[in-house]
Amino acid sequence: MTTTYETLKGRSVAAVRDAIRNGCYSSHTAGLGAGMLQANLAIMPTSHALDFMRFCQRNPKPCPLSGVSDTGNPMMFTLGEDIDIRTDVPLYNIYRDGRLDATVTDITEFWRDDFVAFALGCSFTFENALQQAGIRLWHIDNNTTVPMFRSGIDTVPAGPFSGKMVVSMRMVPEERVTQAAEISRKYPLAHGAPVHWGDPAEIGIDDLSRPDWGDPAPIQDGHVPVFWACGVTPQVAIENAGLPICITHKPGAMLITDVSEFAEIPNYQNNTIFKGE
Amino acid sequence: MTTTYETLKGRSVAAVRDAIRNGCYSSHTAGLGAGMLQANLAIMPTSHALDFMRFCQRNPKPCPLSGVSDTGNPMMFTLGEDIDIRTDVPLYNIYRDGRLDATVTDITEFWRDDFVAFALGCSFTFENALQQAGIRLWHIDNNTTVPMFRSGIDTVPAGPFSGKMVVSMRMVPEERVTQAAEISRKYPLAHGAPVHWGDPAEIGIDDLSRPDWGDPAPIQDGHVPVFWACGVTPQVAIENAGLPICITHKPGAMLITDVSEFAEIPNYQNNTIFKGE
Repeated sequence: MTTTYETLKGRSVAAVRDAIRNGCYSSHTAGLGAGMLQANLAIMPTSHALDFMRFCQRNPKPCPLSGVSDTGNPMMFTLGEDIDIRTDVPLYNIYRDGRLDATVTDITEFWRDDFVAFALGCSFTFENALQQAGIRLWHIDNNTTVPMFRSGIDTVPAGPFSGKMVVSMRMVPEERVTQAAEISRKYPLAHGAPVHWGDPAEIGIDDLSRPDWGDPAPIQDGHVPVFWACGVTPQVAIENAGLPICITHKPGAMLITDVSEFAEIPNYQNNTIFKGE
Repeated sequence: MTTTYETLKGRSVAAVRDAIRNGCYSSHTAGLGAGMLQANLAIMPTSHALDFMRFCQRNPKPCPLSGVSDTGNPMMFTLGEDIDIRTDVPLYNIYRDGRLDATVTDITEFWRDDFVAFALGCSFTFENALQQAGIRLWHIDNNTTVPMFRSGIDTVPAGPFSGKMVVSMRMVPEERVTQAAEISRKYPLAHGAPVHWGDPAEIGIDDLSRPDWGDPAPIQDGHVPVFWACGVTPQVAIENAGLPICITHKPGAMLITDVSEFAEIPNYQNNTIFKGE
C-alpha cells in the first residue's frame, strides 16, 4: 500500500522509516523525519572502501562522512538502533562499470558479504539552520530542486576516485552573505561554509541559468550567488572510478537517521551530549 | 648538531621542520611552528587501515582524522608541500605486537610499501583558542603535561580497535565553563566540545589527583574539572589491537603541518578559503 508525502509529513522518524522499509514510500525525503540528520549513500565492495574513505577525508566539504558500516553488515549501528541499509532508503541507484544500471526500492537481493556502506552528510542541515535565521531559500519556497553545477575546482584524488567538485547554488541577500557563511560553517557534516560566492566564472561556471543538475533559480536583485560543496561530488567520483558495482541513493531520496540534526557528532547515542553540570 | 627549544621558538614552520628532519631537534613541539595545526600520528600496514579509519570515523572526538597517506607513500601531501612522515616528527614510538619496542628519531629504515600514515588532530588548537579568550590553563602556565585519565566511556569498536576513551582534564572557572565548551566545539578537528564536566565519578574517574598519564593539576577553588576526549585514545586502541607493527609519535612530539591552526578543513592549499567577494 503506497503512502503519500503529505501523510508522512510530521510523523515520527520511526513511522517514516517503517513506510520506506515496507516499500510503501519511495520518493524524496526533504522535510520528513523532522529534526533528524539525513544522509547521502554509497555502497561498494571493500576492495575500494579504503580509497573511498581517503577520498572523503581529503574532500570533507563535498564528502562529509557521517557513518560507515562494517564489511558485510547492513546495519548502520552508529546512525540508529535499527537502520538496515538494504531497505531503509526510498530509492537506490545501482551502477555497474560506472553507468546507471537500475533504480530499485530494495537492495536485499544485491547485498554482498564484501559490501561496505557509507553515509555522507547532506545540505538539509545547514538549509534548515539558514531558514531558522530568517534567510529565505528560493528553491525551497518554490518547491524546486537546488541548482547544481560541475565547477572547475579539482577534488583531491584517492586511488581511482577523482573529478571536479560539484557545487550547489543559493541566492543570498548581499548583506547576509557573511552571516550565511558563518552559520553553515558550524555544520562540517553538512558541507560547512560556502566554497565561493560572487562571480561564478571564478570557479569555472559559465552560465548560472543552466545548472548541470536540479532546476534553475532566478538571479534576484540585491542577492549574491553563494556556492556550497555538494553531495553529488562523490557520485561523480564514483562514476569516474568505474567500479564494477556501486549502489547509491537516488538523489533526493535520502537515508533518514536517528541522529539529531544539529548533534555534534554523527552517533545517535550521543544526541544528548553536554550533560555536565 | 642539536638545536634547543628556545632557539626554535618563534621560527618559521619550515625552519622547525628542517631541524626535526635533520635530526637536530627531538623533543616536544608545543608552542613551535606558531599558528600551524599539529597532529598525532599512527602508521600501520594497509591490512588494518580500513578498520582504523572506521574507528576514527566512529570516535571523532578522541580521533579527529586530519590526514591519511596513500599506501606506501610517506608524503603527507594534503598537510603540506613537503612533509615526509618518515623524518618530520621529532620522536617515534615503534610498537610490535601491541608493545613499545623502540623510540627513534627517524623511521626511514622501518618504512614499508604497505604502510598507511594517519594524522589526527590534537588539543593544542582549542587550548590556544581558550587562552585567546582569556581562559587560563594551569598546566600551560606551570609548564606541566595536562593530566589524562582512562575514563569509563566506551569507544565504538571497529575491527580489532576498541577500548575506553582517554580524556584530558582542565580546570575552568565555574562561570566560564559554558563558554569554554562553546569555543572548543568550534574545532571538531581538535577534539571539539568537552565530553563531560563536573563530577569525575560520572565518567568513571575515581581520583583526580592520580592521572593515568601526564602530571596532576590542583583542584582550584571556584573551578570545575572539564574533560575533553584525548588523542591517547587511539594509542590505547592500537595497543589493544596488538598489531604486529605500528608506529606512533612519542606523545608531545607531534607532527607540525602547513595547515593553518584555525582552518576549516585540514588541507594546506585551502588555508585561504572564504575568498568570495
